[in-house]
Formats: sequence, structure tokens, C-alpha cells
Amino acid sequence: MNRPLILVSNDDGYQAKGVRELMKCLSSKGEVIGVCPDAPRSGQSMALTVNAPLRVRREDDVEGMEMYSVNGTPVDCVKLAVYSVLKGRRPDLVVAGINHGSNASINVVYSGTMGAAFEGCAFGIPSIGFSLTDHDPKADFAPCLPFVDALCDAVLSNGLPGGVCLNVNIPDSKIAPEEMRLVRACKGNWSDEYSEYTDPQGHKFYWLTGKFRNDEPEATDTDQWCLDNGIVSVVPCMLDRTAPDVILPSWLNSFLPYKA
Amino acid sequence: MNRPLILVSNDDGYQAKGVRELMKCLSSKGEVIGVCPDAPRSGQSMALTVNAPLRVRREDDVEGMEMYSVNGTPVDCVKLAVYSVLKGRRPDLVVAGINHGSNASINVVYSGTMGAAFEGCAFGIPSIGFSLTDHDPKADFAPCLPFVDALCDAVLSNGLPGGVCLNVNIPDSKIAPEEMRLVRACKGNWSDEYSEYTDPQGHKFYWLTGKFRNDEPEATDTDQWCLDNGIVSVVPCMLDRTAPDVILPSWLNSFLPYKA
Repeated sequence: MNRPLILVSNDDGYQAKGVRELMKCLSSKGEVIGVCPDAPRSGQSMALTVNAPLRVRREDDVEGMEMYSVNGTPVDCVKLAVYSVLKGRRPDLVVAGINHGSNASINVVYSGTMGAAFEGCAFGIPSIGFSLTDHDPKADFAPCLPFVDALCDAVLSNGLPGGVCLNVNIPDSKIAPEEMRLVRACKGNWSDEYSEYTDPQGHKFYWLTGKFRNDEPEATDTDQWCLDNGIVSVVPCMLDRTAPDVILPSWLNSFLPYKA
Repeated sequence: MNRPLILVSNDDGYQAKGVRELMKCLSSKGEVIGVCPDAPRSGQSMALTVNAPLRVRREDDVEGMEMYSVNGTPVDCVKLAVYSVLKGRRPDLVVAGINHGSNASINVVYSGTMGAAFEGCAFGIPSIGFSLTDHDPKADFAPCLPFVDALCDAVLSNGLPGGVCLNVNIPDSKIAPEEMRLVRACKGNWSDEYSEYTDPQGHKFYWLTGKFRNDEPEATDTDQWCLDNGIVSVVPCMLDRTAPDVILPSWLNSFLPYKA
């Protein structure tokens, strides 16, 4: 392959430490260009800006690599990179992150980091999202960089099947992981998701919070188990959400086709 | 079953015709409560409001059924319904829509309507999203209501497998459909996605637009084919995004586990 073109995005915004560490880690692999939200956009999933103007702004380079900000979501960033910033050149790899915070288990469906990776996948480009289980803006990304490095090299060399991208989660940065495994998303969800307040005018308002509940704590083949055990998890994810026939109940196959 | 509790949401906002027609259609089946965004939130996918206060407001009843608005996304609406509005009662069914516009093919991943349905699914509640292929605010929903009625009855009686919800798309309202089929999401994507403008100060801005491109126009087992042929499509969708082992390339299974 010629010198690869690598598009980097995230959901924590162009100023986040995680995306800058990611770009530096990738810099030797090809031409790296960052297109990131102009401010934090966590929890934006695959949201896109439907009915408002989007602007692209050139920011200061990151150690010689171009960085652009967009006043939109991670999906907007990837779309505008492909349609405008990259001037018709197609990236060989889309890498999102490194997110400040885990996107294991159910978090993958809400994650803006993974939104960017899924959008890369929708363009048919091999795409990976990386997340570190540490929300600290100054988190130490050094222990996870060998895994980022190795996996990006492997995907640049081998590609990924159409419609599949990778969700990579890295344990808390206080643990130096020694292994990276192929696993599935853990079943689980959040509980106690809102703090309730009363404003000075006596009206209630709610603020998102919550505790993660692991619904299969005994299973050792999940991303959450890996994180709990100091192992980097790689979950291959499908863009297509169609459920396979084998899990459908017989009543649905009897009910449909339905004639009015 | 006792009189079922049915939660209705959407992404077009509590004032949209589609959600009101949906609530009226469901009214005879149980207690129907609407919790919808306070304004249109199309293309919000499973976005949630992470770092801002959320408020719930009681709106005027819809023909005797309670309607609430939330200053957030469709996912926020479903979460706040479960955590607050329904006062600890668990819905027997979550129904989202009826969306003004198709959510077939790749649109399912961006759709706020389907975001609400996936969120109901994350709570373990049988959930369905309905979308009509007509963006007109005054679209005629009458031809699709017999299908909404029949499918909601069937799901209330039989339930759905855990982690599976239904994405139902209805052809343009100028066609009265005669059939509803179980199919898969069509492969396809959008092209030419941005109109480019220059503001009075000479700065560029971009506005989302685009043309849908069907990548498998010959396939007759897809939702897009159904819509193009006047048939209502039902695609069972997975909340879990983990790709099945069978589609993974051999290099990935050789590369992982990787030891640093």
C-alpha cells in the first residue's frame, strides 16, 4: 500500500488528550488527519445534524498533523471529512478515540466514539474505536498505545469484512495490560439513571447518572470481564442491525406475511 | 394480561401528527401514555443528554391520553418515562413513531424513532418503531393503521425475544398497502450528502441533504424492496451489535489473543 491516509475522530472534542495521543501513536503509519467535534459530544451515538448549518474550522496542527473541528456530532465529523476536508481522497482507515471512559457492554450503542467508527464502516472503510476506562482528562494513555499500534497495523495490512468495525476497550490506565482478546459485548445496563433536583422556582429537573449492572458477571468471554481483569477487549461490531432468523420466535414467522 | 400499559414516543416531537395518530390507534388496547421530545429530533439515533438538565412537562391530553414532553432526545424520553413519568410502573409495550419519513435500510442506525425502540428493548420491554415513507407534516396515516393495529396486538400477546425489537416501514401514504412482510435491512447508503454554501462573511457552511443509493436493487427480501413495491416491511433488529464469529476473517482469529 502507498502511504495510507488515516482519518482520526472522537467524541471528546479536538482538544482532548486522548485524540492527540492517538494521532501521535499513528503518525508513523501514514498521513494522519484529525476531524473532531469542536466541543465534547459524549453519548451522541450515531446522531447527525439534520437541520442546521455545519462549519469546519482548521485548528492548530498536532505535531505537524492537520486538525479540523466541526460544530457537530462524531458522525457529522466523519461525513464532512469524507465529503469535504479530505478533498475526495478516501481514508484507508478510520480510527476514533481514544475515548476518556469505557464503551464496553451496552455503552457501545450510546457512544459517540463508536458512532464515528460505525460511520467509517458505513463508508466501507476499515474502522476502529478505542476507549480507555478512565474519565480523567489527564489520563495516562501510554500503557494502551502498544495495543493501538499493533491492532491498527494489523487492520491496515488485512482490512476488515464489509459492515464490521472494531470496538476496543482498554482497562483503567492504572493497570498496564498484557493481553488483548477477541470477545463479545457483555449483557448489562445502567440502573438508577437520574438524579432528581428542584430548581429555585420549584420545578423538577433531572441529570443523567447511573451505575453499571453486569447481567452476566460469570461469563469470561465478554468485554466487561476483560476490563475487570486487566485485559484489552476487541469486539467486532455489525453496522447492520438485522437480527438473524435463528433467534426469531415461531409466532412471528406464522404471523408474517400478514394480509390486510 | 391486565390492561396493558403502552408507552409511546417518537422523534418528530409531541406535536407531530404521526404520534397522535399512533396513540389513537393504540387507545383501545390499554393505557397509553406519550412521552416525546419537545421539538423535532430527527436523526438523533440513540443519543442521550449526558451533561445538561432534563425537564418533563405535562402537555394537553391527546383524546384523554396523557402526553408529556421532554427537552431531550428520544432515548432520554424513554429513560425518563421509565424512571419518572410512569412512577415505577413498567410498560408492557414501547411503540415509537409513526415517523414522518422512511427508516428502512441504513436509516435505522441514524433514526431517533428507532433509538426510542432500541431503548425500550434495552429495558427488556417489547418495542416497535413505525415509520411512514412520507415527510409531509399532514401525511395520511389511515392506510397504515390496520398494520400497526395487527402487529401491536400480536406483540402484546406473544412478546419478543430479549434484545430484539421491530423496525416497521410503511410505503408512501398515497399507496394503500395490502401486505406486511418479515424481511432484512437493505444494504445501501446516502450519497452527495452536503449542500455547500457561503455565508455573507465569505465563510463556507454545509447542510445535510443526499440521495439514497440502494446497493442491492435486485434483492426482493429487503425493507427497501418492500417499500418500492407497496408492501409494509418488518425488520427484527438486534440491540447487541456483536458480529457473529462466522463472518470474521481468519487473520483476526490468528492475531488475537495478542500479548504485549
